[in-house]
Amino acid sequence: MLRLNGAAVDGAAPFDLADRGLTLGDGLFETIAVFGGKPALLGEHLDRLERAAAEIRLPVDRAFCEAEILALAAGEGDRIVRLTVTRGAGARGLALPEEARPNVIAASSPYPKGALNVPIRLATVSVRRNPTSFASRAKTLSYLDSVLAFDEAKRAGGDDALMLNTDGRVASTAMANLFALVGDELVTPPVSEGVLPGIVRGAVMELAEKAGLMATERSLDIEAFDRADALFATNSVRLVMPVTMVDGLRRGTPDPVARLAALVARACGAATR
Amino acid sequence: MLRLNGAAVDGAAPFDLADRGLTLGDGLFETIAVFGGKPALLGEHLDRLERAAAEIRLPVDRAFCEAEILALAAGEGDRIVRLTVTRGAGARGLALPEEARPNVIAASSPYPKGALNVPIRLATVSVRRNPTSFASRAKTLSYLDSVLAFDEAKRAGGDDALMLNTDGRVASTAMANLFALVGDELVTPPVSEGVLPGIVRGAVMELAEKAGLMATERSLDIEAFDRADALFATNSVRLVMPVTMVDGLRRGTPDPVARLAALVARACGAATR
Repeated sequence: MLRLNGAAVDGAAPFDLADRGLTLGDGLFETIAVFGGKPALLGEHLDRLERAAAEIRLPVDRAFCEAEILALAAGEGDRIVRLTVTRGAGARGLALPEEARPNVIAASSPYPKGALNVPIRLATVSVRRNPTSFASRAKTLSYLDSVLAFDEAKRAGGDDALMLNTDGRVASTAMANLFALVGDELVTPPVSEGVLPGIVRGAVMELAEKAGLMATERSLDIEAFDRADALFATNSVRLVMPVTMVDGLRRGTPDPVARLAALVARACGAATR
Repeated sequence: MLRLNGAAVDGAAPFDLADRGLTLGDGLFETIAVFGGKPALLGEHLDRLERAAAEIRLPVDRAFCEAEILALAAGEGDRIVRLTVTRGAGARGLALPEEARPNVIAASSPYPKGALNVPIRLATVSVRRNPTSFASRAKTLSYLDSVLAFDEAKRAGGDDALMLNTDGRVASTAMANLFALVGDELVTPPVSEGVLPGIVRGAVMELAEKAGLMATERSLDIEAFDRADALFATNSVRLVMPVTMVDGLRRGTPDPVARLAALVARACGAATR
């Protein structure tokens, strides 16, 4: 199911080919899991969208975006809703249009079977995250670095990429934030390292205490990452993914990670599956 | 004028909103100046497109792309043709589709008045180019870093951005390659510094000798850049742009730059204006 600017459309809708989302990757998106008809952590997703949009002076109508998501959330069956906001049509060239007329696209697809809390293997890739780039800390339509990182990891036998940043420290995967469990401390790199302010990352940090853990934002060098007791990744579709392997080396998935995964699933309304 | 997959269309054409060019910035483009009905350096543009496409396993039909560009080049009036190749529609998520069905968009706009060889002022911006990223050395649809760099420079009173790379060395502007004239040596950063293999950059390197200069690819630190006798930028629309100011400090534009600009304009078929 698909909606464009408030109207249901089929796959191929009339669309201005001068849209800067298409021509320049100039826009933002959010991916939201819907469990039992309810979008998980919807307020947090809309908060993040608003903050990122303000930073790049992209006018976003929060209430309209929320209504578009809810229009695709209703009904049977868990699903994923993706909301895309482009800057709309613009003249050739880089300069921002004086008055942006964003296009808002909402798309729904079935929740992928077996995705919830699925364990993953990571493979280190060559492309690094750029802490000076807005695109490394926002879900923008300029996502090719992550696409190519993911593809490189797949071809190396991984399920997702281990991405360092350009300073050589651990950043994230191509599609998820990373956490390292060190004793009872849960460490995740700060956004300033070139990572997304993940919604489920935020939920994990809030819920850590309930799992008997202490969450901390701190830079992670490769040595600290390798020495950690356990690793997991988080995103808004799969929630908490234990990391079972990094570059061919097995990693354990101790109890605290499973406890945390259960707490996050419950907070997202996915607890019963 | 606009064409989509070989057919003339108006601005709002039926377009698959699951196209990965739109959703993920997964695609490439070329911007080609047309002088007197002839696309400048067309073979070089198509070579670059083919090379970049091969690197990201995007199937590109060179002959079709060439025909689309030529279809918009014919007729009166100098113009700019932009050719865009997306990876086509894909399922949600990052994984490359097994068989990509690219969309090819060609768009024509009038050649902007006064753009040829126009002098520019640069302002240093916060976003840096990432040498590990494919997107820093190809014209991809993930162009938001350059959009935001350009906007930051404009707001700082510049015409374009001076972008360093994440190692702190001089890379390029948001829309052009950079050259520094040092004595009779013409220095430009290698592509490995996170810069585009610019088509006019290549033409300048070929023509330098005719202007009595020796062109070299070499890293440029800020000190060497500041000490240079002259600076200029190159791209496929404006060709050779003398840099008259960097962060408010005036720079001279000596004769060799003007000689080179004339040679490049002639090579592009723009010599008579």
